[in-house]
Amino acid sequence: MRLSDLVTELGGILKGEDRVVSGASTLEEASSDEITFLANPKYRDRVKTSRAGAIIVAHEIETAIPQIITKDPYLYFARVVSLVYPDETPEPGISPLACIHPDASVDAGACIYPHVNVGAGARVSKGCIIYPGCYLGANVTIGDQTVCYPNVVIYDGCTLGSNCIIHSGVVIGSDGFGFVWDGSRHVKIPQKGIVIIGDHVEIGSNCTIDRAALTSTRIGSGVKMDNLIQVGHNVVIGEHTIIVSQTGISGSAQIGSNVVLAGQCGIGGHITIGDGCVAAARAGIASDLAAGSVVSGFPAMDHRHWLRVQKVYKDLPEMLKRIRSLERRLESIGKD
Amino acid sequence: MRLSDLVTELGGILKGEDRVVSGASTLEEASSDEITFLANPKYRDRVKTSRAGAIIVAHEIETAIPQIITKDPYLYFARVVSLVYPDETPEPGISPLACIHPDASVDAGACIYPHVNVGAGARVSKGCIIYPGCYLGANVTIGDQTVCYPNVVIYDGCTLGSNCIIHSGVVIGSDGFGFVWDGSRHVKIPQKGIVIIGDHVEIGSNCTIDRAALTSTRIGSGVKMDNLIQVGHNVVIGEHTIIVSQTGISGSAQIGSNVVLAGQCGIGGHITIGDGCVAAARAGIASDLAAGSVVSGFPAMDHRHWLRVQKVYKDLPEMLKRIRSLERRLESIGKD
Amino acid sequence: MRLSDLVTELGGILKGEDRVVSGASTLEEASSDEITFLANPKYRDRVKTSRAGAIIVAHEIETAIPQIITKDPYLYFARVVSLVYPDETPEPGISPLACIHPDASVDAGACIYPHVNVGAGARVSKGCIIYPGCYLGANVTIGDQTVCYPNVVIYDGCTLGSNCIIHSGVVIGSDGFGFVWDGSRHVKIPQKGIVIIGDHVEIGSNCTIDRAALTSTRIGSGVKMDNLIQVGHNVVIGEHTIIVSQTGISGSAQIGSNVVLAGQCGIGGHITIGDGCVAAARAGIASDLAAGSVVSGFPAMDHRHWLRVQKVYKDLPEMLKRIRSLERRLESIGKD
Repeated sequence: MRLSDLVTELGGILKGEDRVVSGASTLEEASSDEITFLANPKYRDRVKTSRAGAIIVAHEIETAIPQIITKDPYLYFARVVSLVYPDETPEPGISPLACIHPDASVDAGACIYPHVNVGAGARVSKGCIIYPGCYLGANVTIGDQTVCYPNVVIYDGCTLGSNCIIHSGVVIGSDGFGFVWDGSRHVKIPQKGIVIIGDHVEIGSNCTIDRAALTSTRIGSGVKMDNLIQVGHNVVIGEHTIIVSQTGISGSAQIGSNVVLAGQCGIGGHITIGDGCVAAARAGIASDLAAGSVVSGFPAMDHRHWLRVQKVYKDLPEMLKRIRSLERRLESIGKD
Repeated sequence: MRLSDLVTELGGILKGEDRVVSGASTLEEASSDEITFLANPKYRDRVKTSRAGAIIVAHEIETAIPQIITKDPYLYFARVVSLVYPDETPEPGISPLACIHPDASVDAGACIYPHVNVGAGARVSKGCIIYPGCYLGANVTIGDQTVCYPNVVIYDGCTLGSNCIIHSGVVIGSDGFGFVWDGSRHVKIPQKGIVIIGDHVEIGSNCTIDRAALTSTRIGSGVKMDNLIQVGHNVVIGEHTIIVSQTGISGSAQIGSNVVLAGQCGIGGHITIGDGCVAAARAGIASDLAAGSVVSGFPAMDHRHWLRVQKVYKDLPEMLKRIRSLERRLESIGKD
Repeated sequence: MRLSDLVTELGGILKGEDRVVSGASTLEEASSDEITFLANPKYRDRVKTSRAGAIIVAHEIETAIPQIITKDPYLYFARVVSLVYPDETPEPGISPLACIHPDASVDAGACIYPHVNVGAGARVSKGCIIYPGCYLGANVTIGDQTVCYPNVVIYDGCTLGSNCIIHSGVVIGSDGFGFVWDGSRHVKIPQKGIVIIGDHVEIGSNCTIDRAALTSTRIGSGVKMDNLIQVGHNVVIGEHTIIVSQTGISGSAQIGSNVVLAGQCGIGGHITIGDGCVAAARAGIASDLAAGSVVSGFPAMDHRHWLRVQKVYKDLPEMLKRIRSLERRLESIGKD
């Protein structure tokens, strides 16, 4: 692809020779037919030694490498990568080795690989790609262009929007965790609700999202989830929220829009987290958070306060010594 | 279903009109043909605005809605849900697209879906439902009425009791984590034991339960496990224990009966946890617990003590200031 | 197997009768035709009541049980277990129920079970065993003798070495978690790199290992991973590193060789951990560690220091009382 073609397609200003690039890589690894980017000024020195064929920058820099100047180089680079490495789209069609229930409806523009099972009343829309080993239960509906990688399981009645990406091993719609003790054993609360997932949602490998007890667990449009995340029954997650790996969200929690939950967080049951909150890695949130809160620690507290607490925490043995010293000095004053 | 039929079936006293209900839902969401319940008195106000067709209560309340009075409304509701939304039982039979080893035995009353593999010597009992993509290794045995949702894997030789529910992506019997360093590399300790699971056990999606090194990993009857839980080799879990999502139990730990381990707990290797213990969310248990202990934190301590510790912990910067102030005042006294 | 045959095969000195053993077990559970071992001297008393047919020891002990004396009894035992319970090797061959792309290459000495999918350009070497439900994407290559248990998914282009063991539900090569906000939504950074896994690597059930954004995520030879571990994109893990269950490694972290990360650890993004480091269970590592560091806690600190901190931490309410007492006493001195 010519640099001038990229500029035509994506905007920006080209300075320097109009080369052809056939790939994209990092400043260190890019070769002379690859394009790279400089987003963080602290890596500017690496440009000198880069062998890249072109570089995307926010402001013109001194270099012999042809550069494309644009407001957000990282965003521009993301789009360039999509152009230079286009996704291969498989041929539409249903593998004769897939099991499609006669009462299911699969669009002629969808691709169903071998060893897929699609239940009665399920609906798979145009442009969907359902990889081998996926299971779509009865009455599952999947919107246009959604991709399920191998071995995704979607239980009966759940709904996915369009343009979603569901990675391998994800389980959507398994039973929520609800029991009541009858005096001699735990009686199961039947889980009769569903899961509803919006558009443009990405869910990482081996995540688990439970169906609601009676109503619906909801994941808003534009939500991005990393791997191995647990979402309990009746949880509601607002649009564009980001959830990083191994976080767990307990039943009936309400997570706002544009929230960020970093890795290994835990959210208590029935907790409400307002829009735009940020929880640092490993935050354990056991009470409601007002919109825009930034928290850390367990139990979670204001992030800046947590930084101060941690500083003292690490010096606790020293603090104990100071208290002992105070006690001794006071003791000796008392004796005077 | 008529309310009077529910009372005939499940007990309780009906007050008000004998209506037909066709569904069950929450106080907020129930419509006029649905039944709901009031278990927690603090939600009593919601009854006024509820459009439910009937309500299950512990004590008669003032409302125009027909009510069923019973000792434990939540337990009663669980049973009602099972009655108004009966599980659909698939037709028994073995799909011609499943691979059953000629030396396996599958009861005529079991249902085996496509793309299931059943190994030599395996035994699947009557009423079992084995969904697509499940793998039952050689000599696996599964008791009556047990359900394996899609893509469950059970390694060779493991045993499941009756009436179990195993959710998608669960792996039972993978190798325990055991190696010994020979001076230049980690040599695998072959894992030749099995996993034995009792009756009425429910295991949530994508849990992993490792086989014992030589003997057996054991999950007692009535145990209920949420999603993404790790159980190491040689672990023993007593009856009716509840384990919440993302908890990890290290090898050879012994968990008693009627224990509750909340979400994201960690249990150290070879630890013994007595009957009836409760570990709050994220407890990290590194030493034995006497029966009936209630613990929090890491390392785990008595829950009430932990609450006091956390209170002080959050004020550590303030505490440091008080110490500094004491030091200054003592300094100035010394100078007098 | 005769004890003298074991000694011929594995070394060591036999004292006592040359018996036949047909199994291996623990001191407590071994019967008279089974061999056991004594590695930890604190279990010496258990030898007296053991019914084992033979025992592996480091130094000759007083017992009527025939003993094999060797430097490292546990290592010796590991090897004995492999000999007395040899792995069954399935017949090589490709199941007619597997889907092998015509452009894939499967060695005649490999075993491919039913319902496996192998993509275009993929290469499966001799001695590999690929269990049912596995998915090997386009251009995946797998070295000699590697085993993939049921339902393993390997995305396009990833590479596994020889003699690896990949347990069920593992996902290798799913997209790394990278997005850039364009002002109204998260734009996906296409993940175009791969995962490269060395030789003799074992990966536990339901682990997830993401492909690099542009280059490669690398797992060194001899690495052993427990279950439910997350490895982010662009991570590099050195040889012989041990990672215990439920640990998460964020993107671009560099883990050295011979590192031990215990259970439920978290490693921050772009962190470097030197060779030979040890992180205790639940350590949260947010800054670089020099080679040989031993750390605990979150944020991680020197393990011995952490032990001292924890001691004081548990006594925080007591410490607060001492400060109050100091304040009162100083107050009363001030009043004198």
